[in-house]
Amino acid sequence: MSEGEKERTSRERTDRTHTDTGEHRLNLAAVYVSDAQHNRNIMFDTTPQAVRLYLLYNHWLLRVCVYVFIMVDLALALFEEPALIPLPLWATSVIELLCLMVFSARLIHYAKVIPRSVFIRDPKNICIIITIMLCVVDLSVYGVLRLCGRSAVRWSRVLRPLLLINITEGRQLRRAFRSIRNALPQILVVFFLFIFSVLMFSLMALKLLGKRNLKTIDGSPYFTNYLEIFFDLYVLVTTANSPDVMMPAYNYSSFFAIFFILYIIINTYTFMSVFLAVVYNNYKKYLKEEVRQLVRAKRQKLCHAFSLLQEVGGAEREPTVSQTCWKQLVRLVQPDISNAQQELLWSVCDPQNTGRVGKMVFVQLADLLNIQVIMMKSHTHPLNRWIPAFYQSTFSKLIHSMVQHRVFVYVYDVIILINAVFIGLDEENPAVSMAEWVFLTLYILEILLKLYTFEPHTFFAKHQFWNWFDTIIIVSALLATIINTALKSSGGYTSRQILDIVFILRVLRLIRVVDTIPRFRAIINTLIKIGAPMLTFGQLILVVYYIFAMVGMELFKGRVQYFGGDSVDPSRHFCGNVLLNGSAFARNNYCKNNFNNVVSSFILLLELTVVNHKYLLFLLCVIYLACCVFVLDSTPLLAGGFTAVTHVSARIFFILFHIVVVIIIINIFVAFILEAFFIEYMVEKSELQTALEKKIEELNVCVEQNHVDNNLVDAMETQDNDLGPGEGVKVKPTIMFKISSTRYRTMDGLLQRMFETEMDLSNDNIDEVETENRTFSNPVFTSS
Amino acid sequence: MSEGEKERTSRERTDRTHTDTGEHRLNLAAVYVSDAQHNRNIMFDTTPQAVRLYLLYNHWLLRVCVYVFIMVDLALALFEEPALIPLPLWATSVIELLCLMVFSARLIHYAKVIPRSVFIRDPKNICIIITIMLCVVDLSVYGVLRLCGRSAVRWSRVLRPLLLINITEGRQLRRAFRSIRNALPQILVVFFLFIFSVLMFSLMALKLLGKRNLKTIDGSPYFTNYLEIFFDLYVLVTTANSPDVMMPAYNYSSFFAIFFILYIIINTYTFMSVFLAVVYNNYKKYLKEEVRQLVRAKRQKLCHAFSLLQEVGGAEREPTVSQTCWKQLVRLVQPDISNAQQELLWSVCDPQNTGRVGKMVFVQLADLLNIQVIMMKSHTHPLNRWIPAFYQSTFSKLIHSMVQHRVFVYVYDVIILINAVFIGLDEENPAVSMAEWVFLTLYILEILLKLYTFEPHTFFAKHQFWNWFDTIIIVSALLATIINTALKSSGGYTSRQILDIVFILRVLRLIRVVDTIPRFRAIINTLIKIGAPMLTFGQLILVVYYIFAMVGMELFKGRVQYFGGDSVDPSRHFCGNVLLNGSAFARNNYCKNNFNNVVSSFILLLELTVVNHKYLLFLLCVIYLACCVFVLDSTPLLAGGFTAVTHVSARIFFILFHIVVVIIIINIFVAFILEAFFIEYMVEKSELQTALEKKIEELNVCVEQNHVDNNLVDAMETQDNDLGPGEGVKVKPTIMFKISSTRYRTMDGLLQRMFETEMDLSNDNIDEVETENRTFSNPVFTSS
Repeated sequence: MSEGEKERTSRERTDRTHTDTGEHRLNLAAVYVSDAQHNRNIMFDTTPQAVRLYLLYNHWLLRVCVYVFIMVDLALALFEEPALIPLPLWATSVIELLCLMVFSARLIHYAKVIPRSVFIRDPKNICIIITIMLCVVDLSVYGVLRLCGRSAVRWSRVLRPLLLINITEGRQLRRAFRSIRNALPQILVVFFLFIFSVLMFSLMALKLLGKRNLKTIDGSPYFTNYLEIFFDLYVLVTTANSPDVMMPAYNYSSFFAIFFILYIIINTYTFMSVFLAVVYNNYKKYLKEEVRQLVRAKRQKLCHAFSLLQEVGGAEREPTVSQTCWKQLVRLVQPDISNAQQELLWSVCDPQNTGRVGKMVFVQLADLLNIQVIMMKSHTHPLNRWIPAFYQSTFSKLIHSMVQHRVFVYVYDVIILINAVFIGLDEENPAVSMAEWVFLTLYILEILLKLYTFEPHTFFAKHQFWNWFDTIIIVSALLATIINTALKSSGGYTSRQILDIVFILRVLRLIRVVDTIPRFRAIINTLIKIGAPMLTFGQLILVVYYIFAMVGMELFKGRVQYFGGDSVDPSRHFCGNVLLNGSAFARNNYCKNNFNNVVSSFILLLELTVVNHKYLLFLLCVIYLACCVFVLDSTPLLAGGFTAVTHVSARIFFILFHIVVVIIIINIFVAFILEAFFIEYMVEKSELQTALEKKIEELNVCVEQNHVDNNLVDAMETQDNDLGPGEGVKVKPTIMFKISSTRYRTMDGLLQRMFETEMDLSNDNIDEVETENRTFSNPVFTSS
Repeated sequence: MSEGEKERTSRERTDRTHTDTGEHRLNLAAVYVSDAQHNRNIMFDTTPQAVRLYLLYNHWLLRVCVYVFIMVDLALALFEEPALIPLPLWATSVIELLCLMVFSARLIHYAKVIPRSVFIRDPKNICIIITIMLCVVDLSVYGVLRLCGRSAVRWSRVLRPLLLINITEGRQLRRAFRSIRNALPQILVVFFLFIFSVLMFSLMALKLLGKRNLKTIDGSPYFTNYLEIFFDLYVLVTTANSPDVMMPAYNYSSFFAIFFILYIIINTYTFMSVFLAVVYNNYKKYLKEEVRQLVRAKRQKLCHAFSLLQEVGGAEREPTVSQTCWKQLVRLVQPDISNAQQELLWSVCDPQNTGRVGKMVFVQLADLLNIQVIMMKSHTHPLNRWIPAFYQSTFSKLIHSMVQHRVFVYVYDVIILINAVFIGLDEENPAVSMAEWVFLTLYILEILLKLYTFEPHTFFAKHQFWNWFDTIIIVSALLATIINTALKSSGGYTSRQILDIVFILRVLRLIRVVDTIPRFRAIINTLIKIGAPMLTFGQLILVVYYIFAMVGMELFKGRVQYFGGDSVDPSRHFCGNVLLNGSAFARNNYCKNNFNNVVSSFILLLELTVVNHKYLLFLLCVIYLACCVFVLDSTPLLAGGFTAVTHVSARIFFILFHIVVVIIIINIFVAFILEAFFIEYMVEKSELQTALEKKIEELNVCVEQNHVDNNLVDAMETQDNDLGPGEGVKVKPTIMFKISSTRYRTMDGLLQRMFETEMDLSNDNIDEVETENRTFSNPVFTSS
């Protein structure tokens, strides 16, 4: 990395030469701070043009645009053959070409922003270029073949998720994949040991049971083929074929149950737990390393920004940044910041009011900006302003105290429970549908009472999740019920869809009861907190499912048909495939579990994730066999010989899917929830808050106590007074700050909090980090 | 606890008066040290008679005896009705009475050992007394009723596992149960939230799907009964009825798949992970608290022992214990300790050779004794002594270097792999059975060569697990193969059992290949290490299964019959129960899954643990229904009305089992494996070894280097010379110590190691702990 070192040092020198103008220097510093704040790690050129291009590159509109085109590209699978909604080939081709052009443009933009040597060394970019090229090639080959009337395979569709991974916005996803890749060797060791164990048990089963002439339930020989045994025992690990696989042996002798019990204890319970332990441990380890590098890179960028803005006072004084410069910077980084907030942040940075900040404090800027501070102004209730006489009457005050009383909450909890019973009753009954109106009225009354008592701005503040939830649910329910009743009374016709929505809204209303029980609320809050970072797992699953769905559709499409419940087609009894005639698969009405379109495929893969059901396996085997028979239709004699081979192929599909999804991804999901809950439990106990949060709290108290003579609050009052011009003097609003409950918008935030207790990058060794930067090889910073 | 305080202080005073004789004082100290070493927490009387009784109480023979009787008592379920091996009622009754008498005697013995006030305050003892009394009452009532020819229920059998839990030897098991009990409130909160979520989804399903007139595969209405829906969705969490439960809705419209996907994500994946997190966290927390108290109690006992033996030198000197006294104590505590080991331990305690140890060092004695030190004497090979000329010849040395070479291991790995292929082939083939002899010869040759090269004592040392494993497997295989061949050649008759054993031994031989791959070995070693502590979980599972099996047998015995594969009885097609005629249960040959005897019950419960299979549920429903029909046979019209009720009852059985076993116990199992693996990973990295182990290592180096003039080694040589009298001068054996790899015999060791990094009870604050003892309320010490 010494090469990269030299390069960086030389670039810094050019920084200095380029950045003669103060404005450019400030812009560049703002970009660094903004990158640090959002954990972006792009090593852009520092010329003014490149910086302007870079700012454009990071513009939210362009980013959203790219995301939309990726989604469109992935969604094409809905319209391409085998299609859910068929579109002509030219239409999908044009859309795909458009998407590819957008991606290319984005890539060219990226190439303009960063130095060429960095661009071509980055595997991510190479991967995108190759993917785009392959897609174009495949598209043209497919088009030509189809024009000639030949059949062809759209194999490049498997590559589409690679775009989702590699386009820069998929950073967290990429990190997750990299962590998995790094953890893979350790996982593989355990996996081989596990396979070894299964092989040993298979061998033992072959020797013990193969010679005993046992029959399975459908009369085929039991445990005589080694590969069959291996596969059966592998499936037993997923517990899908328990106890069927054991019954013939158990019926023969109870002693054989010992064999299966041992197998389940060793392979199902112990090895699966070991998998969880290994995946958890390794994934966490590598992720921690990545996050550590991320934090280092953040520090590095802030140091860059500081060195751009610093004013060297003299030999004895440390370099500092002036208040004016700092404020300009903050304004550039966060244009929508209020003056009051800016003052607050500054007072945190500079508690002694010296007018300057040193390096130590400056590098915390990104973290400081990332703390979501909510400004709460104690507005008076609008009714109090409009009709103060009534609003402050005894009757009105009675209502206030009633609504704020604990019994009010209890009464509504009881109402909700009664409502739950009524929902369960038959809604055709006029009394029940009458009751529904009563409940709706009660709920609306509750919201109105609350709005009367509490100030609307406070009631509908950004962080009041449950108030928003309630209001939206109730208002939608009201609207839907009215529409439904109108439809019913007009033509006697009830729209099924609207009725469904009404029912769902009614049931959702009941969730509110959870909020009034504090212990439930704590758990729900944790779940909501980790909800957003979970979206990364959603993407991970999406990528894996998409690839498997594409492969599955190419291999198995059209082999199983679903004819609908009312069809009279005789072939619906065997899903349109004679091979399935009389099979358990058809008997159980599983025909709709097929690979005929992308939606069915996704649902089928989800079912395989949940239970890996034997019937679905059976499906895989049969359709693959059918596929081969179809290909080799002129040589039916060969088909018998092919059975073993095709079984093996379909089984490889299943085993691969099981390894990737169940063993790795589901375990990471579990590990993530475990870790997040442990963090939550620890925080509950130790009340560890960052030093910055504490400072803000202290200041808050300060604001609360001395809100008249405090310097800072004065500044706020004069600058941020949003009352009407006439009333400004009479009613003095008190501004209170509150740190919003840390709901992590991205996985980075949660991850950094997860590992920050274990990180050695405390504030104390900041100088050391800074010097270390010169020699630190930072793959994240250079490669993503 | 101030009362207990006073009592203890007064008891200590009486200690002093009782312990005027030095011998009794030494005995008492030895008992304290021994208790500390084995983590026993019985607060015995300190009179000489009581101490003698206490020593008898702890005698291993009595403890084993009690365990045997507990096992006999539990095993009675095999012989009592419904019996696997029927015994007459008088026989089982006499055995049970005998067991109960033994338990009573043990309890009386215990009552004699500890002060009466402690005895009656301990809930454990009260529980034992009540259990024994209830058993006697039930036994007599049952006997009388049977003599009168009336039917009766042996309900007290459910209480038997309580004896396993509460008799003192079940200490670890009791601790596990206590931890579960303490963690229960937290678990219940999550459980209620989970149930709430399932109820909400059920309500939504009822509203969305109930009115659509859908049919399940067997034609019954789909999702119309609220309780049915709840149960179906609860079972879906266990994934047992996926995708069957979803198919009718999915066939109706693909949109309903979203409902089930959401359900699976929220309830199956998220809530089950949250359960794991909560169980893990709480169980660990309470267990840690218990272990902390255990460590405190240990310190306390050692301080007692020290205060009994201390010699106060003067005002300026700290109290100490002399070397003679210390050695007498160690000899009393561990009679089988060798002089050399004793010297080693002393030199660790007293590195400056002052002849005395202070309190700080003394209290480490129990830990010191718990470290298993292996003495390795570098014996010369016996052949070298008998035929030195040949043994040191060039040819012999060639063999040595060959065996020790790496290639030798590789060659045998290849042989094992080839052998694996041959095992897979048909053994009827004469070439294959010939090859088996070749492989056996090769393996025996390997062992002989190794024995020729390595000294037999070293080769078969206690910690050489794999050498023992190999030799036992190979020798047994040789014997079994010879017996098998002899039987075959004599009468042409092959014993199936012996052949089975031969096969199992052959396959087990292959495991050895794992040992040669270091990364595999590391995982296997971890698994073996946590194997012994896992036995506590075995007991836990045993207790839970036993209780459920007893209840299940009383409720469901004889409702389903298995007639064997060759039976011609027509009722075998419906498992002897007309209600099962044509059911999927009978069709799949599940008849042997029943509650007719204790073995079947255990296997059925294991199957329920693994997959909670719908057919087994179906069984539960049907047999419970049958049971009710049987009871109400005169009122068949009522049966229809009872269906719903009986379904509910059988389902409660299932849901209770699922909560107890799957949600709590299996999660603890997983948590334990996770924790153990994390500890192993951490240890691999940080190489944390206790200070004492390091000291011993240092000393070892010292022994190695200065083995001629070292004081300590001299002492060993003169005292421990086990060579023949004539050779003592010529060949001087070097004694090496080695700390045996810490394989935990009990869960305590592993637990203490698990938590020792987080414990604040370091050596430094020993005095503080000692003073704290006076006010420390120690429930473990007083109540168990």
